[in-house]
Amino acid sequence: MSNKARLILFLRYIHNRDLRRDKIAELRKDPVIARWVIISTEREKKPLHFTVEKPGPSKEKKCPFCEGNEATTPPEIISYRKEGTKPNTPGWRIRVVPNKYPALKIGGDPNKREKGIYKMMSGIGAHEVIIETPHHIEDVFYLEDKVVEEMLWVYRERIIELMKNPHFQYVLIFKNRGIIAGASLSHSHSQLIATPLVPKRVEEELEGSKEYFELKGKCLFCNIVEQEIALEERLLWEDENFISLCPFASCFPYEMCILPKRHYSDFREIKKSEIKSLARILKKCITSLDKILPRIPYNYIIHTSPCSRPDLEFYHWHLEIIPRLSRVAGFEWGTGFYINYITPEEAAKYLTQLQSSPISLR
Amino acid sequence: MSNKARLILFLRYIHNRDLRRDKIAELRKDPVIARWVIISTEREKKPLHFTVEKPGPSKEKKCPFCEGNEATTPPEIISYRKEGTKPNTPGWRIRVVPNKYPALKIGGDPNKREKGIYKMMSGIGAHEVIIETPHHIEDVFYLEDKVVEEMLWVYRERIIELMKNPHFQYVLIFKNRGIIAGASLSHSHSQLIATPLVPKRVEEELEGSKEYFELKGKCLFCNIVEQEIALEERLLWEDENFISLCPFASCFPYEMCILPKRHYSDFREIKKSEIKSLARILKKCITSLDKILPRIPYNYIIHTSPCSRPDLEFYHWHLEIIPRLSRVAGFEWGTGFYINYITPEEAAKYLTQLQSSPISLR
Repeated sequence: MSNKARLILFLRYIHNRDLRRDKIAELRKDPVIARWVIISTEREKKPLHFTVEKPGPSKEKKCPFCEGNEATTPPEIISYRKEGTKPNTPGWRIRVVPNKYPALKIGGDPNKREKGIYKMMSGIGAHEVIIETPHHIEDVFYLEDKVVEEMLWVYRERIIELMKNPHFQYVLIFKNRGIIAGASLSHSHSQLIATPLVPKRVEEELEGSKEYFELKGKCLFCNIVEQEIALEERLLWEDENFISLCPFASCFPYEMCILPKRHYSDFREIKKSEIKSLARILKKCITSLDKILPRIPYNYIIHTSPCSRPDLEFYHWHLEIIPRLSRVAGFEWGTGFYINYITPEEAAKYLTQLQSSPISLR
Repeated sequence: MSNKARLILFLRYIHNRDLRRDKIAELRKDPVIARWVIISTEREKKPLHFTVEKPGPSKEKKCPFCEGNEATTPPEIISYRKEGTKPNTPGWRIRVVPNKYPALKIGGDPNKREKGIYKMMSGIGAHEVIIETPHHIEDVFYLEDKVVEEMLWVYRERIIELMKNPHFQYVLIFKNRGIIAGASLSHSHSQLIATPLVPKRVEEELEGSKEYFELKGKCLFCNIVEQEIALEERLLWEDENFISLCPFASCFPYEMCILPKRHYSDFREIKKSEIKSLARILKKCITSLDKILPRIPYNYIIHTSPCSRPDLEFYHWHLEIIPRLSRVAGFEWGTGFYINYITPEEAAKYLTQLQSSPISLR
């Protein structure tokens, strides 16, 4: 390259840099766990492409979650099924089975022990799979409202049952949709893990919201609901029971959160009438996400109060939806901070107006 | 399927389940930040396959990091180059440039502000790229020892320089290798971010190690070094200055950590003679990882003390290497716990004996 050509490239770079200069990132603090997020719209200029896996069912020769293949899973724990049909045979609408490769297992003693500076204990707990439909359907948003309601009702039923076990401190409901989000099977399912400890993330939420309550005398989550309804800019959908929104300090593009309007910390306290409403709003969130970013992998999780502290005046259960677009890299691991390339206000706009996202999948 | 066939499948399942029963997971507590990790070898029975991207350079028409293409990056901040050559022209061995799409930018005021319950500030900071070689080489382990030494010396030099800025609280050095690990270019490079806040993860490490120091009167990391040398089971390589090991509560398969034997919390205090030793041990770690899992994506980061608290008797700088094999899914996000499918003791064995890993890449 000649020196002249090099100079031209340089000048062009400087010009573009100046154009970009006005865009300074914003650091936002999560009001619950005091985690900072970098909202950097700088990269908007750079096309954002993400790889999404090809449809999966063809790889799975025989789907273990489909009706008729009940024998390929561990024996069912509970199911909702046609009267007169037997467990582990066809005729079910929803089915809960132990995870075939459990991260934690029921039985035994916690056996806490030490070795010099190190502490350890046995991995007792439970790891279950909720198969949401007997048909080979790949996402919640294809399911009928009634099916999603039953799924949510089963979540509640399993949490009630597992929280009776004195060895368990917490029950986490979670969903992995798509290989990138950690799902190994494409048939629509959720999972739960009962843990012998209260998870770190939950402890952080409890600590942060307790601190706020002690300072302000009010539930932080109730205040978030109020402020988000008043501001409107991050609000997605609401009805008499719930609101959904893009959180102020979203770690990921198109992150969403569903919160009950009524104050209660324990998901088990949800009423039948509220389940209807939650099913509709959850479907709405996921349908909209899939409309603007088809086949996007995602996770959702339910954060509720721990087994031993169910009714908390300072805590509020909620459901978090995390689309898996950005990669967690060295920076995130090293700092515990996140970089989000779309403001939650813009994300809310794209989701509610169903405009195609500036992020593209390929 | 006949009822008999179903029964046979069931009995086979029960039999296999019983075979698996002895394998109960172990929960291990990270001694520094008190994070629990589930070491679950249950899934060893399930073949673990991970997708690794195809070699990248063909996609990049013109690599902006190669010698001769200096004009396609922002003007260099520093470089080590042949005497008599000009900045931003060929003749360099190592080159530091601002990130073209910075997450944080130099200049301006932190401008801390509030909006109701929410807090935010401007994203001031620095985001730089360290181009480790003028040649299109894709990994540190292909670089000569001398080149790696220079790279480490540049890390030190940049931290020294940036820590002088009174707006910055922390400087993080990190490396993303491979698309899955967050790298957008394949040419070997590292990055640094200077942040206006001490990162959450670093605060957690400082808090945990301070607590230990107050209790025991000794640096926790010094104790880790001693105990790991004595136990040997997780030890990888050591010389007079450093040890490398698979951490007791590794979150990820084949996670590694390099620790100086001498107590000092501030990476800037590293001596020229120690740099030689660090370069060798870092190359050894990454070469071994690549031998057992070719082309594996990974991150590494350097944790050092914050700008305003450089010399801490309770803290110890270190380098963490994180291979990107497992997917962070709903469970990890919801709990802050991690599930690791290989014990660090086994990982150490595979790495030091260069046996091929039970995890395969495809």
